[in-house]
Amino acid sequence: MIPQTMHTEQHLDFELDKAIPVLERTPAVLSDLLGDLPDDWTRVDEGPETWSPRQVVAHLIHGERTDWIPRARIILKQGKYRKFDPFDRFAELDSPRPLTDLLAEFDRLRGESIATLRGWNLKEKDLELTGEHPEFGTVSMRQLLSTWVVHDLSHISQITRTMARAYTRAVGPWTAFFRVLQRDIRQ
Amino acid sequence: MIPQTMHTEQHLDFELDKAIPVLERTPAVLSDLLGDLPDDWTRVDEGPETWSPRQVVAHLIHGERTDWIPRARIILKQGKYRKFDPFDRFAELDSPRPLTDLLAEFDRLRGESIATLRGWNLKEKDLELTGEHPEFGTVSMRQLLSTWVVHDLSHISQITRTMARAYTRAVGPWTAFFRVLQRDIRQ
Repeated sequence: MIPQTMHTEQHLDFELDKAIPVLERTPAVLSDLLGDLPDDWTRVDEGPETWSPRQVVAHLIHGERTDWIPRARIILKQGKYRKFDPFDRFAELDSPRPLTDLLAEFDRLRGESIATLRGWNLKEKDLELTGEHPEFGTVSMRQLLSTWVVHDLSHISQITRTMARAYTRAVGPWTAFFRVLQRDIRQ
Repeated sequence: MIPQTMHTEQHLDFELDKAIPVLERTPAVLSDLLGDLPDDWTRVDEGPETWSPRQVVAHLIHGERTDWIPRARIILKQGKYRKFDPFDRFAELDSPRPLTDLLAEFDRLRGESIATLRGWNLKEKDLELTGEHPEFGTVSMRQLLSTWVVHDLSHISQITRTMARAYTRAVGPWTAFFRVLQRDIRQ
């Protein structure tokens, strides 16, 4: 196996008009993937301290309410106090609500977030504005919005990895062919 | 960090009526995620010998034509010769066709595959039938169909991980928060 660190990675620069299409697709991707799926799939996790697909959706809702747009507002306002509230990554994880409701709420909230973001009509200079992250210190609007995109994508990756791993035993000898099923190699 | 091997994994047994819903959603998930997305996102990869999202879609089309249903047919027929043809994982990867065409073709082929699978109306005894894998030897219909599900899920996971990693630099200090952006830890 070739060590991943020998790879030459490809990087994309953040561009608002290429980031928004990713952000606005996430609710449809999640609804197609999880809506009305047999419950077993939505409740599996990867073991203690890992999340099931429905917990990830609940986490995304919380982010929509308290993280991305609220932090972007703090940056955009450029007030004297620009420190973000810490984001509680474990809030609302175990909602008893039906997953269909959670997916619908995420869809609605994300729609509002994107409308707000588009409404700001951010220019290059706005993307350079900064706020203060509770752990990292100074971060830019560009970094915040890039992180929003990565957050969506990494959680879709996590959901599908988690579902795949639930069949680790079911596939029998094919385990050897799937990197995601091998917990002892680097992904 | 807790070693992943200490985790108690959750496993699902293969059940045909819970597997089909996953398989039949994949085309919609991929179309929502990638259809008409700015081209940059569909062409990034994770470095040499890794695949871009559009290469993964091309690979899924090839699997639909030559792997899953053809192998299930060999098992179901229970002829004297039950050895599968080797699956060329690198065939058709670099199709020049527009991604929209590839997504539409995958949707059509998968629809046909699912119709065939449903039409067989497989019972428990059918799931126990076996064929011969060119590398692993004897494998069951149950394992083949489980692998089909894992194959879909792991490729969606791969596509979104690949896209997320393209923004590794763009997120700045937030890299620390995303397991998928860290190539030197176990996933």
